Amino acid sequence: MWEKFPELQHDLQKTVQLMEEILHLKNKQVEAAILEMIHSGGKLLRPAYQILFAQFGPEKEPEKIIALAAAIELLHTATLIHDDIVDQADLRRNTPTIRSQFGNSTAVYAGDYLFVSCFKLMADYATSMKSLQMNSRSMEKILAGELGQMDKHYYTEVSIEEYLENISGKTAELFALSCSIGALESGSSQLFAKKAAEIGHHIGMAFQMLDDILDYSQASQKLGKPVLEDVRQGIYSLPLLYALKENPEDIKPILAKKAAMTKEEAQTIFTLVHETNGLQNAQVLAEEYTEKALKEIAKLPNRPTGVKETLLEITKMILHREN
Amino acid sequence: MWEKFPELQHDLQKTVQLMEEILHLKNKQVEAAILEMIHSGGKLLRPAYQILFAQFGPEKEPEKIIALAAAIELLHTATLIHDDIVDQADLRRNTPTIRSQFGNSTAVYAGDYLFVSCFKLMADYATSMKSLQMNSRSMEKILAGELGQMDKHYYTEVSIEEYLENISGKTAELFALSCSIGALESGSSQLFAKKAAEIGHHIGMAFQMLDDILDYSQASQKLGKPVLEDVRQGIYSLPLLYALKENPEDIKPILAKKAAMTKEEAQTIFTLVHETNGLQNAQVLAEEYTEKALKEIAKLPNRPTGVKETLLEITKMILHREN
Repeated sequence: MWEKFPELQHDLQKTVQLMEEILHLKNKQVEAAILEMIHSGGKLLRPAYQILFAQFGPEKEPEKIIALAAAIELLHTATLIHDDIVDQADLRRNTPTIRSQFGNSTAVYAGDYLFVSCFKLMADYATSMKSLQMNSRSMEKILAGELGQMDKHYYTEVSIEEYLENISGKTAELFALSCSIGALESGSSQLFAKKAAEIGHHIGMAFQMLDDILDYSQASQKLGKPVLEDVRQGIYSLPLLYALKENPEDIKPILAKKAAMTKEEAQTIFTLVHETNGLQNAQVLAEEYTEKALKEIAKLPNRPTGVKETLLEITKMILHREN
Repeated sequence: MWEKFPELQHDLQKTVQLMEEILHLKNKQVEAAILEMIHSGGKLLRPAYQILFAQFGPEKEPEKIIALAAAIELLHTATLIHDDIVDQADLRRNTPTIRSQFGNSTAVYAGDYLFVSCFKLMADYATSMKSLQMNSRSMEKILAGELGQMDKHYYTEVSIEEYLENISGKTAELFALSCSIGALESGSSQLFAKKAAEIGHHIGMAFQMLDDILDYSQASQKLGKPVLEDVRQGIYSLPLLYALKENPEDIKPILAKKAAMTKEEAQTIFTLVHETNGLQNAQVLAEEYTEKALKEIAKLPNRPTGVKETLLEITKMILHREN
């Protein structure tokens, strides 16, 4: 995926190397499983954006940039491990989850350990307390969001605004954080860091919507995370929310069966989403956020040469992906 | 418990107030449950030591001291919530655990949220990056320790040294951190902070041993956390380890039944620990650490008046408690 951008690819390889180096667990099986999780197709999007936004600043400290990129990816991995407990997920990216391999207990501590490794890297490498404060504020927002959603499962009246608020906490916040920490820790102004955060936010919003859309594409049903399992667990994403607005009569009675929904009924939901304008409407909204992001990136400085162009190209690649 | 120390009591009340103020969850039931956990008889020992060690330094910033004390207690509470998931505990201090009230999923995020609140307070109030680094190093040690132990359940050959290493990570580390952050963030020297950490370490070691000893006292069987459940789950603490050395023939076959152990068999373990020198030997070792702590506290500066005496009195009170 990063082959077209050799410098960035090189930095991302070093990011992964650093993550490997700092993970030290007595239990080597768990250590290996975490490393496998890091390797197995994680796209390293957040570190990539962080590294790219760090190019605009006056301070060039490659070691620090890599360390902070690794911190963000560790944070991301920690949240995935804990999300898999909550979602009772057995597979992620076609690899068995930590909880399915070692049980929920190990997964709880493994996630905690990665959280802490993230903060350790931040405390060791960040120059400004401001970054650490931003980091903890973001994390707080993400977790308060997750906790707020816990009792909203099976709630069929979720408005589009609430969905946007949810994914803003869940996904966009971490993209925004990556971009702004990259900016801030390379000596860019607070104003520039704020702009970077906005761009990151738009990218994150579009990214999550696209993820939710792709969950309903035929192909993704073969992938690790079947959307219909989410639906059975009461998690309703954008395409389904749009479909619900259009055809509540047919959809609501099936959703009301909650976890008792059969596979056939879940398949009906899938068909109903495809028969309404659920997917198209979701695509239109995702495209709006993509356009906002691209428009703002286009306004970034032209120096250093090529960074803006790389940002544009990568953002298009990610937000127009088809699987 | 703190009535004899009105100034400290006042500071601890403010610490709890601050914890209440910063917890903001959309889910008010979960928020209430966390607050109840904070109120229900938590002894606030770690904040107390942190506040007392902060008295020796030249810098007097009450607001900051309270904030950092709250951070430590939030960290402690976070680890308890996650420990209760791992131990499948239904009660703690006679109050239903978060996991038993709201399920493991909510408990995972609730613990994460408190972890992050701790880091947020630290980042907002700590003056030196050094404290943040110490904080994350300690946490890393604690979690690496917990993860290392996960596959040691039901292991009957745990040596006393391994037990000491375990509780050093599990309990003593957080006491050491509290004392040293108190010292460092009030402007004391690194050397003094190191001494504070040593004292905290000894206190934490003795505290955990005493906890493990009290678990085997008759009275504690009525309390929230029956030790025999731990034994069934394969967690063997100091009195049992000493008893195992003395009478492996009778004890090992029962332990070998693991989770299938009946209540009567667990009761037999309890009796066997009482019949050997398990409890006395554990008491002797705990007393050694208590003496080390008291001896080092006695060497602390006499100014400000009364702080050293309070430290001595509290430490004796805690480490000679009988329930």
